[in-house]
Amino acid sequence: MDANIPKDHPRHRSLVTRERLKDAMRRGLVHETGLVAHGRGEAFDYLLGEQTVPEAHEAARVAAAALLTAKRPCVSLNGNVVALAAASCVDLAKTTDAALEVNLFHRTEERVAKLVAEVQKVADGVTVLGLHPDARIPGLSSDRALCSTKGLYGADTVLVPLEDGDRCEALKRMGKLVVAIDLNPLSRTAQAADVTLVDEVTRAVPLVAKAARELRGTPPDDLRLVVKGWDNRANLGRVLHRIARRLDQLGDRSPVDPG
Amino acid sequence: MDANIPKDHPRHRSLVTRERLKDAMRRGLVHETGLVAHGRGEAFDYLLGEQTVPEAHEAARVAAAALLTAKRPCVSLNGNVVALAAASCVDLAKTTDAALEVNLFHRTEERVAKLVAEVQKVADGVTVLGLHPDARIPGLSSDRALCSTKGLYGADTVLVPLEDGDRCEALKRMGKLVVAIDLNPLSRTAQAADVTLVDEVTRAVPLVAKAARELRGTPPDDLRLVVKGWDNRANLGRVLHRIARRLDQLGDRSPVDPG
Repeated sequence: MDANIPKDHPRHRSLVTRERLKDAMRRGLVHETGLVAHGRGEAFDYLLGEQTVPEAHEAARVAAAALLTAKRPCVSLNGNVVALAAASCVDLAKTTDAALEVNLFHRTEERVAKLVAEVQKVADGVTVLGLHPDARIPGLSSDRALCSTKGLYGADTVLVPLEDGDRCEALKRMGKLVVAIDLNPLSRTAQAADVTLVDEVTRAVPLVAKAARELRGTPPDDLRLVVKGWDNRANLGRVLHRIARRLDQLGDRSPVDPG
Repeated sequence: MDANIPKDHPRHRSLVTRERLKDAMRRGLVHETGLVAHGRGEAFDYLLGEQTVPEAHEAARVAAAALLTAKRPCVSLNGNVVALAAASCVDLAKTTDAALEVNLFHRTEERVAKLVAEVQKVADGVTVLGLHPDARIPGLSSDRALCSTKGLYGADTVLVPLEDGDRCEALKRMGKLVVAIDLNPLSRTAQAADVTLVDEVTRAVPLVAKAARELRGTPPDDLRLVVKGWDNRANLGRVLHRIARRLDQLGDRSPVDPG
Protein backbone atom coordinates (compact mmCIF):
# COMPACT_ATOMS: atom_id res chain seq x y z
CA MET A 1 0.00 0.00 0.00
CA ASP A 2 1.36 3.41 -0.88
CA ALA A 3 -0.95 5.34 1.41
CA ASN A 4 -0.57 5.94 5.12
CA ILE A 5 -4.05 5.90 6.56
CA PRO A 6 -4.16 7.14 10.14
CA LYS A 7 -5.63 4.51 12.51
CA ASP A 8 -7.84 7.15 14.10
CA HIS A 9 -9.36 8.26 10.80
CA PRO A 10 -13.14 7.97 11.20
CA ARG A 11 -13.36 5.95 8.01
CA HIS A 12 -10.17 3.90 8.50
CA ARG A 13 -11.66 0.52 7.62
CA SER A 14 -13.21 1.81 4.39
CA LEU A 15 -9.97 3.50 3.31
CA VAL A 16 -7.87 0.39 4.05
CA THR A 17 -10.30 -1.74 2.03
CA ARG A 18 -9.98 0.65 -0.90
CA GLU A 19 -6.17 0.46 -0.76
CA ARG A 20 -6.28 -3.35 -0.71
CA LEU A 21 -8.38 -3.31 -3.85
CA LYS A 22 -6.09 -0.86 -5.61
CA ASP A 23 -3.08 -3.04 -4.79
CA ALA A 24 -4.96 -6.09 -6.05
CA MET A 25 -5.58 -4.29 -9.34
CA ARG A 26 -1.88 -3.51 -9.70
CA ARG A 27 -1.17 -7.21 -9.13
CA GLY A 28 -3.59 -8.15 -11.90
CA LEU A 29 -6.21 -9.74 -9.64
CA VAL A 30 -8.87 -7.07 -10.05
CA HIS A 31 -10.22 -5.50 -13.26
CA GLU A 32 -10.45 -1.72 -13.59
CA THR A 33 -14.23 -1.85 -13.57
CA GLY A 34 -13.93 -3.70 -10.25
CA LEU A 35 -12.62 -0.45 -8.75
CA VAL A 36 -15.60 1.47 -10.12
CA ALA A 37 -17.96 -1.20 -8.76
CA HIS A 38 -16.24 -0.94 -5.40
CA GLY A 39 -16.79 2.82 -5.39
CA ARG A 40 -20.50 2.30 -6.02
CA GLY A 41 -20.53 -0.08 -3.08
CA GLU A 42 -18.73 2.46 -0.88
CA ALA A 43 -21.45 5.01 -1.55
CA PHE A 44 -24.25 2.64 -0.62
CA ASP A 45 -22.34 1.44 2.43
CA TYR A 46 -21.91 5.03 3.49
CA LEU A 47 -25.69 5.43 3.27
CA LEU A 48 -26.13 2.37 5.49
CA GLY A 49 -23.81 3.93 8.06
CA GLU A 50 -21.00 1.49 7.18
CA GLN A 51 -22.51 -1.16 9.43
CA THR A 52 -24.51 -4.35 9.05
CA VAL A 53 -28.18 -3.41 9.17
CA PRO A 54 -30.80 -5.68 10.82
CA GLU A 55 -32.18 -6.68 7.40
CA ALA A 56 -28.76 -8.10 6.48
CA HIS A 57 -28.57 -10.05 9.74
CA GLU A 58 -31.91 -11.65 8.90
CA ALA A 59 -30.86 -12.40 5.33
CA ALA A 60 -27.61 -13.97 6.57
CA ARG A 61 -29.60 -16.51 8.62
CA VAL A 62 -31.70 -17.43 5.61
CA ALA A 63 -28.61 -17.61 3.39
CA ALA A 64 -26.97 -20.00 5.85
CA ALA A 65 -30.12 -22.15 5.96
CA ALA A 66 -30.18 -22.27 2.14
CA LEU A 67 -26.54 -23.31 1.87
CA LEU A 68 -26.87 -25.93 4.65
CA THR A 69 -29.91 -27.60 3.04
CA ALA A 70 -28.54 -27.49 -0.51
CA LYS A 71 -27.57 -30.74 -2.22
CA ARG A 72 -24.74 -29.03 -4.09
CA PRO A 73 -23.95 -25.55 -2.82
CA CYS A 74 -21.31 -23.41 -4.53
CA VAL A 75 -19.63 -20.13 -3.60
CA SER A 76 -18.66 -18.02 -6.62
CA LEU A 77 -15.52 -15.87 -6.43
CA ASN A 78 -14.49 -12.91 -8.57
CA GLY A 79 -11.56 -10.50 -8.38
CA ASN A 80 -13.00 -8.13 -5.79
CA VAL A 81 -14.21 -11.00 -3.60
CA VAL A 82 -10.82 -12.72 -3.62
CA ALA A 83 -9.00 -9.44 -2.94
CA LEU A 84 -11.22 -8.63 0.03
CA ALA A 85 -12.64 -11.85 1.47
CA ALA A 86 -10.79 -14.96 0.22
CA ALA A 87 -10.22 -16.50 3.66
CA SER A 88 -13.83 -15.89 4.79
CA CYS A 89 -15.14 -17.52 1.62
CA VAL A 90 -12.96 -20.59 2.26
CA ASP A 91 -14.26 -20.73 5.83
CA LEU A 92 -17.85 -20.47 4.62
CA ALA A 93 -17.33 -23.15 1.97
CA LYS A 94 -15.89 -25.54 4.58
CA THR A 95 -18.69 -24.83 7.04
CA THR A 96 -21.42 -25.48 4.46
CA ASP A 97 -19.59 -28.11 2.42
CA ALA A 98 -19.81 -25.86 -0.65
CA ALA A 99 -17.67 -25.88 -3.79
CA LEU A 100 -15.52 -22.81 -4.52
CA GLU A 101 -15.26 -21.51 -8.08
CA VAL A 102 -13.49 -18.50 -9.54
CA ASN A 103 -15.82 -17.02 -12.12
CA LEU A 104 -15.05 -13.76 -13.90
CA PHE A 105 -17.06 -11.26 -15.88
CA HIS A 106 -13.94 -9.95 -17.64
CA ARG A 107 -12.37 -13.38 -17.97
CA THR A 108 -8.75 -13.96 -18.96
CA GLU A 109 -6.98 -17.25 -18.32
CA GLU A 110 -4.16 -15.32 -16.67
CA ARG A 111 -6.42 -13.59 -14.19
CA VAL A 112 -8.31 -16.81 -13.34
CA ALA A 113 -4.97 -18.53 -12.67
CA LYS A 114 -3.78 -15.70 -10.44
CA LEU A 115 -7.02 -15.69 -8.48
CA VAL A 116 -7.11 -19.48 -8.05
CA ALA A 117 -3.52 -19.34 -6.76
CA GLU A 118 -4.45 -16.49 -4.40
CA VAL A 119 -7.35 -18.45 -2.89
CA GLN A 120 -5.27 -21.62 -2.64
CA LYS A 121 -2.85 -19.78 -0.37
CA VAL A 122 -5.60 -19.76 2.27
CA ALA A 123 -7.66 -22.76 1.08
CA ASP A 124 -6.07 -25.31 3.42
CA GLY A 125 -6.49 -28.14 0.95
CA VAL A 126 -9.96 -27.21 -0.36
CA THR A 127 -10.20 -27.40 -4.17
CA VAL A 128 -10.69 -24.14 -6.00
CA LEU A 129 -12.46 -24.59 -9.36
CA GLY A 130 -12.38 -22.23 -12.32
CA LEU A 131 -9.25 -23.06 -14.28
CA HIS A 132 -10.83 -25.77 -16.44
CA PRO A 133 -14.41 -24.77 -17.27
CA ASP A 134 -16.41 -27.51 -19.02
CA ALA A 135 -19.85 -25.89 -19.25
CA ARG A 136 -21.61 -22.66 -20.11
CA ILE A 137 -24.36 -20.72 -18.34
CA PRO A 138 -27.16 -20.64 -20.97
CA GLY A 139 -28.18 -17.24 -22.31
CA LEU A 140 -24.87 -15.46 -21.77
CA SER A 141 -22.53 -14.50 -24.57
CA SER A 142 -18.73 -14.33 -24.31
CA ASP A 143 -16.41 -15.95 -21.82
CA ARG A 144 -18.37 -14.80 -18.81
CA ALA A 145 -20.64 -17.82 -19.45
CA LEU A 146 -17.84 -20.33 -18.78
CA CYS A 147 -18.13 -22.44 -15.63
CA SER A 148 -17.55 -25.90 -14.16
CA THR A 149 -19.96 -28.83 -13.89
CA LYS A 150 -18.59 -29.61 -10.43
CA GLY A 151 -19.10 -26.01 -9.33
CA LEU A 152 -21.54 -23.34 -10.48
CA TYR A 153 -23.09 -25.28 -13.36
CA GLY A 154 -24.12 -28.32 -11.31
CA ALA A 155 -24.99 -26.42 -8.12
CA ASP A 156 -28.58 -26.17 -6.87
CA THR A 157 -27.73 -23.23 -4.57
CA VAL A 158 -25.13 -20.56 -5.31
CA LEU A 159 -23.72 -17.72 -3.25
CA VAL A 160 -22.73 -14.87 -5.57
CA PRO A 161 -21.02 -12.00 -3.79
CA LEU A 162 -20.77 -8.86 -5.97
CA GLU A 163 -22.35 -10.49 -9.02
CA ASP A 164 -23.19 -8.97 -12.39
CA GLY A 165 -26.94 -8.52 -12.96
CA ASP A 166 -27.02 -10.43 -16.25
CA ARG A 167 -25.29 -13.42 -14.79
CA CYS A 168 -27.41 -13.42 -11.66
CA GLU A 169 -30.56 -13.51 -13.80
CA ALA A 170 -29.11 -16.28 -15.97
CA LEU A 171 -28.37 -18.39 -12.88
CA LYS A 172 -31.96 -17.86 -11.74
CA ARG A 173 -33.26 -19.01 -15.15
CA MET A 174 -31.28 -22.23 -14.62
CA GLY A 175 -33.53 -22.87 -11.61
CA LYS A 176 -30.90 -22.32 -8.97
CA LEU A 177 -31.52 -20.77 -5.59
CA VAL A 178 -29.36 -17.64 -5.66
CA VAL A 179 -27.96 -15.94 -2.57
CA ALA A 180 -26.43 -12.53 -3.37
CA ILE A 181 -24.27 -10.08 -1.43
CA ASP A 182 -24.76 -6.62 -2.91
CA LEU A 183 -24.62 -3.19 -1.29
CA ASN A 184 -27.01 -1.72 -3.85
CA PRO A 185 -30.52 -2.83 -2.91
CA LEU A 186 -31.73 -1.62 -6.32
CA SER A 187 -29.28 -3.58 -8.47
CA ARG A 188 -30.63 -6.28 -10.76
CA THR A 189 -28.56 -8.79 -8.79
CA ALA A 190 -30.11 -7.71 -5.49
CA GLN A 191 -33.58 -7.78 -7.00
CA ALA A 192 -33.24 -11.05 -8.92
CA ALA A 193 -31.70 -13.10 -6.10
CA ASP A 194 -33.78 -15.29 -3.76
CA VAL A 195 -31.87 -14.06 -0.71
CA THR A 196 -29.99 -10.75 -0.77
CA LEU A 197 -27.63 -9.53 1.92
CA VAL A 198 -27.34 -5.78 1.49
CA ASP A 199 -24.00 -5.59 3.24
CA GLU A 200 -20.32 -5.05 2.62
CA VAL A 201 -18.61 -8.26 1.55
CA THR A 202 -15.95 -8.37 4.29
CA ARG A 203 -18.71 -8.10 6.90
CA ALA A 204 -21.29 -10.25 5.11
CA VAL A 205 -19.38 -13.46 4.34
CA PRO A 206 -18.26 -14.05 7.97
CA LEU A 207 -21.83 -13.31 9.06
CA VAL A 208 -23.20 -16.11 6.85
CA ALA A 209 -20.48 -18.47 8.09
CA LYS A 210 -21.33 -17.65 11.71
CA ALA A 211 -25.03 -18.23 11.09
CA ALA A 212 -24.22 -21.54 9.38
CA ARG A 213 -22.27 -22.72 12.42
CA GLU A 214 -25.15 -21.73 14.69
CA LEU A 215 -27.75 -23.49 12.51
CA ARG A 216 -25.80 -26.67 11.83
CA GLY A 217 -27.68 -28.66 14.49
CA THR A 218 -31.15 -27.55 13.32
CA PRO A 219 -33.30 -30.22 11.57
CA PRO A 220 -33.12 -29.75 7.77
CA ASP A 221 -36.91 -29.52 7.47
CA ASP A 222 -36.93 -26.55 9.83
CA LEU A 223 -34.17 -24.89 7.80
CA ARG A 224 -36.14 -25.45 4.59
CA LEU A 225 -39.13 -23.69 6.18
CA VAL A 226 -36.90 -20.71 7.00
CA VAL A 227 -35.87 -20.45 3.34
CA LYS A 228 -39.39 -21.04 2.03
CA GLY A 229 -40.89 -18.34 4.24
CA TRP A 230 -38.43 -15.64 3.17
CA ASP A 231 -39.80 -12.57 1.36
CA ASN A 232 -36.71 -11.05 -0.26
CA ARG A 233 -38.49 -8.15 -1.96
CA ALA A 234 -40.08 -7.07 1.30
CA ASN A 235 -36.69 -7.17 3.02
CA LEU A 236 -35.13 -5.06 0.24
CA GLY A 237 -37.99 -2.57 0.59
CA ARG A 238 -37.22 -2.25 4.30
CA VAL A 239 -33.56 -1.50 3.49
CA LEU A 240 -34.59 1.26 1.04
CA HIS A 241 -36.89 2.82 3.63
CA ARG A 242 -34.09 2.61 6.20
CA ILE A 243 -31.72 4.52 3.90
CA ALA A 244 -34.43 7.07 3.13
CA ARG A 245 -34.96 7.69 6.87
CA ARG A 246 -31.22 8.23 7.30
CA LEU A 247 -31.07 10.70 4.41
CA ASP A 248 -34.04 12.61 5.78
CA GLN A 249 -32.29 12.92 9.13
CA LEU A 250 -29.06 14.02 7.48
CA GLY A 251 -30.97 16.49 5.30
CA ASP A 252 -32.47 18.06 8.40
CA ARG A 253 -29.22 18.55 10.24
CA SER A 254 -26.83 19.28 7.34
CA PRO A 255 -23.99 17.14 8.64
CA VAL A 256 -20.38 17.03 7.62
CA ASP A 257 -19.02 13.78 6.25
CA PRO A 258 -15.86 12.92 8.22
CA GLY A 259 -14.40 11.05 5.21
CA MET B 1 -12.62 1.22 -25.52
CA ASP B 2 -12.69 -2.55 -25.27
CA ALA B 3 -16.38 -2.87 -24.53
CA ASN B 4 -19.27 -2.76 -26.94
CA ILE B 5 -22.07 -1.01 -25.15
CA PRO B 6 -25.39 -1.31 -26.99
CA LYS B 7 -26.83 2.11 -27.89
CA ASP B 8 -30.23 1.01 -26.62
CA HIS B 9 -28.93 0.00 -23.20
CA PRO B 10 -31.00 1.89 -20.63
CA ARG B 11 -27.83 3.14 -18.94
CA HIS B 12 -25.78 3.74 -22.11
CA ARG B 13 -24.46 7.16 -21.16
CA SER B 14 -23.30 6.00 -17.73
CA LEU B 15 -21.56 2.94 -19.17
CA VAL B 16 -19.80 4.95 -21.88
CA THR B 17 -18.58 7.43 -19.27
CA ARG B 18 -17.18 4.58 -17.20
CA GLU B 19 -15.32 3.19 -20.23
CA ARG B 20 -13.83 6.62 -20.98
CA LEU B 21 -12.48 6.81 -17.47
CA LYS B 22 -11.01 3.31 -17.60
CA ASP B 23 -9.26 4.16 -20.87
CA ALA B 24 -7.95 7.40 -19.32
CA MET B 25 -6.49 5.39 -16.46
CA ARG B 26 -4.71 3.08 -18.88
CA ARG B 27 -3.27 6.17 -20.57
CA GLY B 28 -1.97 7.46 -17.22
CA LEU B 29 -4.35 10.40 -16.98
CA VAL B 30 -6.46 9.07 -14.12
CA HIS B 31 -5.31 7.59 -10.78
CA GLU B 32 -6.73 4.27 -9.56
CA THR B 33 -8.56 5.99 -6.74
CA GLY B 34 -10.20 8.16 -9.41
CA LEU B 35 -12.02 5.05 -10.61
CA VAL B 36 -13.26 4.32 -7.08
CA ALA B 37 -14.37 7.93 -6.71
CA HIS B 38 -16.18 7.68 -10.02
CA GLY B 39 -18.02 4.60 -8.77
CA ARG B 40 -19.16 6.48 -5.69
CA GLY B 41 -20.45 9.21 -7.97
CA GLU B 42 -22.28 6.66 -10.13
CA ALA B 43 -24.17 5.42 -7.09
CA PHE B 44 -25.29 8.89 -6.07
CA ASP B 45 -26.17 9.77 -9.66
CA TYR B 46 -28.25 6.63 -9.84
CA LEU B 47 -30.14 7.80 -6.75
CA LEU B 48 -30.78 11.15 -8.45
CA GLY B 49 -32.24 9.31 -11.45
CA GLU B 50 -29.17 10.10 -13.58
CA GLN B 51 -30.54 13.55 -14.38
CA THR B 52 -29.93 17.12 -13.32
CA VAL B 53 -32.24 17.87 -10.40
CA PRO B 54 -33.87 21.31 -9.92
CA GLU B 55 -31.52 22.07 -6.98
CA ALA B 56 -28.52 21.70 -9.33
CA HIS B 57 -30.12 24.02 -11.91
CA GLU B 58 -30.47 26.66 -9.21
CA ALA B 59 -26.91 26.15 -7.97
CA ALA B 60 -25.60 26.43 -11.55
CA ARG B 61 -27.11 29.91 -11.86
CA VAL B 62 -25.46 31.00 -8.61
CA ALA B 63 -22.17 29.41 -9.65
CA ALA B 64 -22.25 31.35 -12.93
CA ALA B 65 -23.01 34.59 -11.08
CA ALA B 66 -20.08 33.94 -8.72
CA LEU B 67 -17.63 33.28 -11.55
CA LEU B 68 -18.85 36.30 -13.58
CA THR B 69 -18.44 38.72 -10.65
CA ALA B 70 -15.08 37.33 -9.49
CA LYS B 71 -11.96 39.43 -9.91
CA ARG B 72 -9.83 36.36 -10.53
CA PRO B 73 -11.84 33.21 -11.14
CA CYS B 74 -10.10 29.87 -11.63
CA VAL B 75 -11.32 26.46 -12.77
CA SER B 76 -9.41 23.56 -11.18
CA LEU B 77 -8.88 20.40 -13.20
CA ASN B 78 -7.96 16.90 -12.04
CA GLY B 79 -7.65 13.58 -13.85
CA ASN B 80 -11.30 12.60 -13.82
CA VAL B 81 -12.40 16.10 -14.87
CA VAL B 82 -9.99 16.20 -17.81
CA ALA B 83 -10.97 12.67 -18.89
CA LEU B 84 -14.67 13.48 -18.85
CA ALA B 85 -15.14 17.24 -19.35
CA ALA B 86 -12.00 18.95 -20.68
CA ALA B 87 -13.71 20.77 -23.55
CA SER B 88 -16.62 21.98 -21.37
CA CYS B 89 -14.16 23.33 -18.80
CA VAL B 90 -12.31 25.25 -21.51
CA ASP B 91 -15.63 26.64 -22.74
CA LEU B 92 -16.59 27.68 -19.21
CA ALA B 93 -13.21 29.31 -18.57
CA LYS B 94 -13.50 31.32 -21.78
CA THR B 95 -17.07 32.38 -21.01
CA THR B 96 -16.20 33.58 -17.50
CA ASP B 97 -12.63 34.71 -18.21
CA ALA B 98 -11.31 32.20 -15.69
CA ALA B 99 -7.85 30.67 -15.41
CA LEU B 100 -7.49 26.91 -15.91
CA GLU B 101 -5.17 24.93 -13.66
CA VAL B 102 -4.41 21.23 -13.43
CA ASN B 103 -4.20 20.37 -9.75
CA LEU B 104 -3.81 16.79 -8.54
CA PHE B 105 -4.33 15.01 -5.26
CA HIS B 106 -1.97 12.20 -6.28
CA ARG B 107 0.49 14.49 -8.03
CA THR B 108 3.28 13.28 -10.27
CA GLU B 109 5.02 15.58 -12.75
CA GLU B 110 4.35 13.03 -15.48
CA ARG B 111 0.62 12.97 -14.89
CA VAL B 112 0.37 16.78 -14.68
CA ALA B 113 2.21 17.03 -18.01
CA LYS B 114 -0.07 14.49 -19.65
CA LEU B 115 -3.18 16.24 -18.38
CA VAL B 116 -2.00 19.71 -19.41
CA ALA B 117 -1.26 18.34 -22.90
CA GLU B 118 -4.68 16.69 -23.02
CA VAL B 119 -6.49 19.95 -22.15
CA GLN B 120 -4.33 21.93 -24.60
CA LYS B 121 -5.63 19.76 -27.43
CA VAL B 122 -9.02 21.43 -26.93
CA ALA B 123 -7.89 24.70 -25.29
CA ASP B 124 -7.85 26.75 -28.48
CA GLY B 125 -5.01 28.97 -27.29
CA VAL B 126 -6.10 29.32 -23.65
CA THR B 127 -3.22 28.81 -21.19
CA VAL B 128 -3.41 25.75 -18.96
CA LEU B 129 -1.53 26.21 -15.67
CA GLY B 130 -0.21 23.49 -13.39
CA LEU B 131 3.20 22.52 -14.77
CA HIS B 132 5.17 25.13 -12.84
CA PRO B 133 3.63 25.59 -9.39
CA ASP B 134 5.11 28.47 -7.41
CA ALA B 135 2.90 28.46 -4.29
CA ARG B 136 1.37 26.15 -1.71
CA ILE B 137 -2.14 25.94 -0.28
CA PRO B 138 -1.57 26.51 3.47
CA GLY B 139 -2.45 23.66 5.82
CA LEU B 140 -1.97 20.81 3.35
CA SER B 141 0.94 18.40 3.51
CA SER B 142 2.56 16.71 0.50
CA ASP B 143 2.48 17.68 -3.15
CA ARG B 144 -1.27 18.10 -3.25
CA ALA B 145 -0.66 21.60 -1.80
CA LEU B 146 1.25 22.78 -4.89
CA CYS B 147 -0.43 25.41 -7.06
CA SER B 148 0.15 28.53 -9.16
CA THR B 149 -0.04 32.18 -8.14
CA LYS B 150 -1.68 33.01 -11.46
CA GLY B 151 -4.25 30.28 -10.95
CA LEU B 152 -5.70 28.69 -7.81
CA TYR B 153 -3.46 30.47 -5.31
CA GLY B 154 -4.30 34.00 -6.42
CA ALA B 155 -7.93 33.35 -7.29
CA ASP B 156 -10.78 34.86 -5.28
CA THR B 157 -13.33 32.39 -6.68
CA VAL B 158 -12.58 28.80 -7.63
CA LEU B 159 -14.61 26.11 -9.32
CA VAL B 160 -13.53 22.70 -8.05
CA PRO B 161 -15.23 19.82 -9.80
CA LEU B 162 -14.73 16.50 -7.96
CA GLU B 163 -12.49 17.96 -5.25
CA ASP B 164 -10.98 16.26 -2.21
CA GLY B 165 -12.58 17.33 1.08
CA ASP B 166 -9.33 18.37 2.74
CA ARG B 167 -8.35 20.61 -0.13
CA CYS B 168 -11.78 22.13 -0.44
CA GLU B 169 -11.69 23.09 3.25
CA ALA B 170 -8.15 24.49 2.87
CA LEU B 171 -9.29 26.68 -0.05
CA LYS B 172 -12.17 27.94 2.11
CA ARG B 173 -9.72 28.80 4.92
CA MET B 174 -7.82 30.94 2.40
CA GLY B 175 -10.97 33.05 2.12
CA LYS B 176 -11.91 32.01 -1.39
CA LEU B 177 -15.43 31.59 -2.64
CA VAL B 178 -15.61 27.91 -3.54
CA VAL B 179 -17.98 26.44 -6.13
CA ALA B 180 -18.01 22.63 -6.06
CA ILE B 181 -19.44 19.96 -8.35
CA ASP B 182 -19.97 16.80 -6.30
CA LEU B 183 -22.55 14.03 -6.64
CA ASN B 184 -22.40 13.21 -2.94
CA PRO B 185 -24.41 15.86 -1.10
CA LEU B 186 -22.89 14.59 2.17
CA SER B 187 -19.22 14.86 1.20
CA ARG B 188 -17.02 17.33 3.03
CA THR B 189 -16.47 19.09 -0.30
CA ALA B 190 -20.20 19.47 -0.90
CA GLN B 191 -20.75 20.68 2.65
CA ALA B 192 -17.75 23.03 2.85
CA ALA B 193 -18.31 24.79 -0.49
CA ASP B 194 -20.21 28.05 -0.84
CA VAL B 195 -22.10 26.80 -3.87
CA THR B 196 -22.49 23.07 -4.54
CA LEU B 197 -23.88 21.56 -7.72
CA VAL B 198 -24.97 18.03 -6.85
CA ASP B 199 -24.73 16.82 -10.43
CA GLU B 200 -22.65 14.66 -12.74
CA VAL B 201 -19.65 16.58 -14.08
CA THR B 202 -20.38 16.11 -17.80
CA ARG B 203 -23.86 17.56 -17.25
CA ALA B 204 -22.88 20.18 -14.65
CA VAL B 205 -20.02 22.06 -16.34
CA PRO B 206 -22.00 22.85 -19.55
CA LEU B 207 -24.91 23.92 -17.33
CA VAL B 208 -22.75 26.52 -15.55
CA ALA B 209 -21.37 27.74 -18.90
CA LYS B 210 -24.89 28.10 -20.29
CA ALA B 211 -26.02 30.02 -17.20
CA ALA B 212 -22.95 32.27 -17.52
CA ARG B 213 -23.83 33.11 -21.12
CA GLU B 214 -27.40 33.91 -20.10
CA LEU B 215 -26.31 36.10 -17.17
CA ARG B 216 -23.50 37.97 -18.95
CA GLY B 217 -25.66 41.06 -19.56
CA THR B 218 -26.93 41.28 -15.97
CA PRO B 219 -25.58 44.20 -13.86
CA PRO B 220 -22.78 42.94 -11.55
CA ASP B 221 -24.52 44.25 -8.44
CA ASP B 222 -27.56 42.10 -9.23
CA LEU B 223 -25.31 39.07 -9.71
CA ARG B 224 -23.59 39.73 -6.37
CA LEU B 225 -27.01 39.75 -4.69
CA VAL B 226 -27.76 36.34 -6.24
CA VAL B 227 -24.55 34.95 -4.72
CA LYS B 228 -25.06 36.66 -1.37
CA GLY B 229 -28.61 35.36 -1.00
CA TRP B 230 -27.69 31.73 -1.62
CA ASP B 231 -28.24 29.22 1.21
CA ASN B 232 -26.10 26.26 0.19
CA ARG B 233 -26.87 24.08 3.23
CA ALA B 234 -30.60 24.47 2.67
CA ASN B 235 -30.19 23.49 -0.98
CA LEU B 236 -28.17 20.39 -0.01
CA GLY B 237 -30.88 19.47 2.50
CA ARG B 238 -33.46 19.62 -0.29
CA VAL B 239 -31.34 17.26 -2.42
CA LEU B 240 -31.12 14.76 0.46
CA HIS B 241 -34.87 14.86 0.98
CA ARG B 242 -35.38 14.41 -2.78
CA ILE B 243 -33.23 11.27 -2.77
CA ALA B 244 -35.06 9.99 0.32
CA ARG B 245 -38.44 10.45 -1.43
CA ARG B 246 -37.15 8.52 -4.43
CA LEU B 247 -35.89 5.65 -2.27
CA ASP B 248 -39.21 5.49 -0.42
CA GLN B 249 -41.04 5.21 -3.74
CA LEU B 250 -38.64 2.55 -4.99
CA GLY B 251 -38.94 0.70 -1.67
CA ASP B 252 -42.71 0.60 -2.06
CA ARG B 253 -42.73 -0.77 -5.56
CA SER B 254 -39.63 -3.03 -5.49
CA PRO B 255 -38.34 -2.08 -8.92
CA VAL B 256 -35.73 -3.71 -11.06
CA ASP B 257 -32.66 -1.67 -11.95
CA PRO B 258 -32.22 -1.81 -15.74
CA GLY B 259 -28.42 -1.44 -15.42
